[in-house]
Amino acid sequence: MDAAEQAGQGQGQGPQAVRPAGAGGLTAEELQKRLARFAAAREWGQYHTPKNLAAALSVEASELLEIFQWLTPEQAQAVMDDPESAFRVRDEVADVLAYTLQFCEVLGIDALEALAAKIDRNERRFPAGPYPLDR
Amino acid sequence: MDAAEQAGQGQGQGPQAVRPAGAGGLTAEELQKRLARFAAAREWGQYHTPKNLAAALSVEASELLEIFQWLTPEQAQAVMDDPESAFRVRDEVADVLAYTLQFCEVLGIDALEALAAKIDRNERRFPAGPYPLDR
Amino acid sequence: MDAAEQAGQGQGQGPQAVRPAGAGGLTAEELQKRLARFAAAREWGQYHTPKNLAAALSVEASELLEIFQWLTPEQAQAVMDDPESAFRVRDEVADVLAYTLQFCEVLGIDALEALAAKIDRNERRFPAGPYPLDR
Amino acid sequence: MDAAEQAGQGQGQGPQAVRPAGAGGLTAEELQKRLARFAAAREWGQYHTPKNLAAALSVEASELLEIFQWLTPEQAQAVMDDPESAFRVRDEVADVLAYTLQFCEVLGIDALEALAAKIDRNERRFPAGPYPLDR
Repeated sequence: MDAAEQAGQGQGQGPQAVRPAGAGGLTAEELQKRLARFAAAREWGQYHTPKNLAAALSVEASELLEIFQWLTPEQAQAVMDDPESAFRVRDEVADVLAYTLQFCEVLGIDALEALAAKIDRNERRFPAGPYPLDR
Repeated sequence: MDAAEQAGQGQGQGPQAVRPAGAGGLTAEELQKRLARFAAAREWGQYHTPKNLAAALSVEASELLEIFQWLTPEQAQAVMDDPESAFRVRDEVADVLAYTLQFCEVLGIDALEALAAKIDRNERRFPAGPYPLDR
Repeated sequence: MDAAEQAGQGQGQGPQAVRPAGAGGLTAEELQKRLARFAAAREWGQYHTPKNLAAALSVEASELLEIFQWLTPEQAQAVMDDPESAFRVRDEVADVLAYTLQFCEVLGIDALEALAAKIDRNERRFPAGPYPLDR
Repeated sequence: MDAAEQAGQGQGQGPQAVRPAGAGGLTAEELQKRLARFAAAREWGQYHTPKNLAAALSVEASELLEIFQWLTPEQAQAVMDDPESAFRVRDEVADVLAYTLQFCEVLGIDALEALAAKIDRNERRFPAGPYPLDR
């Protein structure tokens, strides 16, 4: 079994055809497991302490911000129009998401559940005003 | 239709029973849509420019790091043992994930696809050494 | 000798009258020493490792950014007009500067010298264009 | 007058001999003015809004943290022993200090005064325990 297989393929979870095409058919949970196997295969677990991963996540989030720091709002809005900057943005988003999921992996946190619970709390904290579009 | 319904329920995508229980059965894509409806209902779209969301994401990632900044590696490892700090960690993870998905929403980025593509690139960039566990 | 004295007064470096009034007449180097005594008096040295201080600095810089994250450029420009937000900005600037100087203290870095050397390098890297104001 | 002169030399503030040698004899306030002239000579003022500078400061603070993110406490402590990493650390410290001072410049904040006032507040907030070294 080579590295490529090891990192996320052939997981026997049913036909790819019924899955979202975007991420090669993988869900957030499956990508999290793929990242865990990727790190284990390289013996990176020793570096992936909760504190180090929190630091790395904040560093990657800043690298995403760096793309925008000198842009006007108009330039920022158009950042995906240029293939090179679009690549850079997607690359930094991927790093942010990767470290978020790896952080959750080492601490046993269900990231999507945490988000759903937070949205629930925010629904109560910030009641919606008059609903837009008159519904 | 009340706020709770409006924010992510009843989307007619099949029985909840077959979904992961964690996030109320919602996938990352569905939570992203729920966040979009949440912001729209509060007319927050004007603030949710790509640049502002990138800044907010980096601020939230730092708030997660703040929990760990003075902890020893051992204390950091045990952060989920205390209910209060566990709540705080989950809350900040949720904020990071929320702004990541909202950023992706306004720029039309498929976050999971970006992550899968990045893992593919990293597989080529960092070939795995001798596979642990002798497989 | 009380805490106030211990933290920066009476250093026998000449009359206060010839010093900048702003910081109680203290230079950056003197404030750095005052911070070192402050931490020593509270036995905080154990927490003030280079890595922890770098993390704390990035957290404080994000807290400064947080003030601006949803503001329009016009609102951001006027942030010192409101006493409460002006206080908050000054407070976060102070935290950023405090951790910068404490980081430099523990690693034996001369912060002002590092900055002067960097400006020298930037002078060579970014030659000035036609001088504004026709000089 | 060339760029080098324009950025901080010949300010007629007395003999260099009586000044700290480290920063070419310049104080924090003088380096702040030198940075202001540097930016003006390149017409960078349009980019140097308070919000952009706060973002750039947080990005630079993260670049400093990035150096430490995977290091053990012992490795972090030894970061100045290697000339290359020592250079990188000094370079990032300089960037942090540069953006801090430029931020203060555009908002009319006296950085050293803000720090001195904060230390005063912290003296009251965190009374020192038994003074170490039995003084």
